[in-house]
Amino acid sequence: MDKRFNLCLIGFGNASRAFCKILLDHHESVKKITGHDVRVTAIAARSKGSLIDKDGINLENVLSRIEKHQKIHETESTDLDTLSLIEQSGADVMIEMSSLSIKDGQPAISHIEKAFDLGMHVVTANKGPIAWKYKALKKIADDKNLQFLYETTVMDGTPVFNLVRFTLPGCRVKSFKGILNSTTNFVIEEMEKGNDYESAIKQAQLEGFAEADPTLDIDGWDAAAKTTALANVLLGGDLTPLDIDRTGIGHITATDVNNALKDNKKIKLICEGGFKNGQVVGKVSPQLVEQSTLFATIDATSSLVSITTDLMGEVIIIEKNPEIQQTGYGIYSDLLTLLNGLHN
Amino acid sequence: MDKRFNLCLIGFGNASRAFCKILLDHHESVKKITGHDVRVTAIAARSKGSLIDKDGINLENVLSRIEKHQKIHETESTDLDTLSLIEQSGADVMIEMSSLSIKDGQPAISHIEKAFDLGMHVVTANKGPIAWKYKALKKIADDKNLQFLYETTVMDGTPVFNLVRFTLPGCRVKSFKGILNSTTNFVIEEMEKGNDYESAIKQAQLEGFAEADPTLDIDGWDAAAKTTALANVLLGGDLTPLDIDRTGIGHITATDVNNALKDNKKIKLICEGGFKNGQVVGKVSPQLVEQSTLFATIDATSSLVSITTDLMGEVIIIEKNPEIQQTGYGIYSDLLTLLNGLHN
Repeated sequence: MDKRFNLCLIGFGNASRAFCKILLDHHESVKKITGHDVRVTAIAARSKGSLIDKDGINLENVLSRIEKHQKIHETESTDLDTLSLIEQSGADVMIEMSSLSIKDGQPAISHIEKAFDLGMHVVTANKGPIAWKYKALKKIADDKNLQFLYETTVMDGTPVFNLVRFTLPGCRVKSFKGILNSTTNFVIEEMEKGNDYESAIKQAQLEGFAEADPTLDIDGWDAAAKTTALANVLLGGDLTPLDIDRTGIGHITATDVNNALKDNKKIKLICEGGFKNGQVVGKVSPQLVEQSTLFATIDATSSLVSITTDLMGEVIIIEKNPEIQQTGYGIYSDLLTLLNGLHN
Repeated sequence: MDKRFNLCLIGFGNASRAFCKILLDHHESVKKITGHDVRVTAIAARSKGSLIDKDGINLENVLSRIEKHQKIHETESTDLDTLSLIEQSGADVMIEMSSLSIKDGQPAISHIEKAFDLGMHVVTANKGPIAWKYKALKKIADDKNLQFLYETTVMDGTPVFNLVRFTLPGCRVKSFKGILNSTTNFVIEEMEKGNDYESAIKQAQLEGFAEADPTLDIDGWDAAAKTTALANVLLGGDLTPLDIDRTGIGHITATDVNNALKDNKKIKLICEGGFKNGQVVGKVSPQLVEQSTLFATIDATSSLVSITTDLMGEVIIIEKNPEIQQTGYGIYSDLLTLLNGLHN
């Protein structure tokens, strides 16, 4: 007899729907491999309404309605606020995919606290809580013997946290360095091609990876949040994005980019973390890199993290031009990691 | 009460000794984390003799003797052949680190079969058995509920197999592509700098990563064995190195290398695997890559594998200029993975 395993989805944007599509395609194989009959019993879809169905929501139906720009359900949509929806979902895991509030991590943090309070495991694709309150949330999870997973927050489905956790056992991470913000990487690359800043931003927005307000990317806030997440999890820090020594790319001109090229260099927004006088520190800054080096080849929306450890030296992982499918997969991979980690 | 966990080490070369040093430094932390008191109870060190001590061999002592070019033990060295040593070791895991026989994988395969026969888990740093007999050995391990680990065989301690197994759950690997042979990569790079083939080989031998007989590297056999290992494990193949479409770099001249450079290209020995008409296939061949691309930046003894999957697209992992410590760590990481996977 397969065990029921119920999901509560907070947020029903592109990533959440990409996850649901993977879940639909793999429901039977997940059952076969993990012994769990996974169903979505609650969805909070903001302006599109919310829905609870303890027998399992018909995802095909819901995805099709959203694609037609309809409400999530014709008649049964609920008016519950998100915290009440989590409470009434009866879910085993709450998956936090609400919009990022990069300046404080809310209301995602309160969603997670509520879920833990109710004895639910948590998967978050929202980096806010990891950047703003990782240590405290992790402590609650550990105290209650609940799983807390967040692989998607830095490189979509490309493993960074799981890379260290599962494949570098016994290693202590000493530092990391990466390129982690697509918008800035893309904008600088467009400027290298002779396109101007404004049209590059517009293109990034059209392709869906830059926000309507691009300043959070351009000013380095998104990169700082990811740097904080890596510093908190991999180095045991207790930082917030405010603690990151942050410089964006807003001041960089076409002349700067061209001068770099003439000198066989490129400008990249680099995220770094490590220890200084025993304290965990993080930095985000545009840096010149030689064109013949690895970092210079990270193009468009690709990203990279180099991790330096005590026993294994330097290991580098790269995500190659991901699309929304990769974010959906990241959440799915956390779900499988969670199911594999259940001991009952 | 900590459980005793005994190791039998077959081979006591550089990698084996690097592993022992890590083990010495981390004996107490391994005990604390895994609850296992890990001891080496048998070592087969070829010309340096062999040793069995069921209470646990004094590794410090043995390492110091070998560094002084002495036999492994003054008086108690045994004359047992390797198979008898495995039998009498009373070990829980046999770690296969004997010299590679790239043309048939022996005698490492018979060591592993013996260990499984005795109910031991197996870790192999020797790629021969994975390239020549993976599928059959894996079946024996599965049938007997024993663990069979081999992370070190392709990229030292950099995770390739564990990357897929633990961090890309639910993904099916469709193909891979990599740069996996240090000697050829180094030799071509030296030729790019204007150094000749002969002196490049000598330098690689001095630095310890090229064999006394470099033809196995130059002719692509080492790369073919690694390609086979990846194809067998990640794609479910049942190939041997003879099945790989193999071209080495022996025919490449300084003129070829210079012509490539003039054209903003580099020559790299590329390993590839995938499916063709439903069959698993593998190929090793020198290829031209654009200087501005990722593959061109893999310098000296660094290596790279790009893995393309159904759900997660392309993920790339890079090992940056490893030394023997990284091979030792690979074996140590397999030991920890093994201990973490024990269910009793």
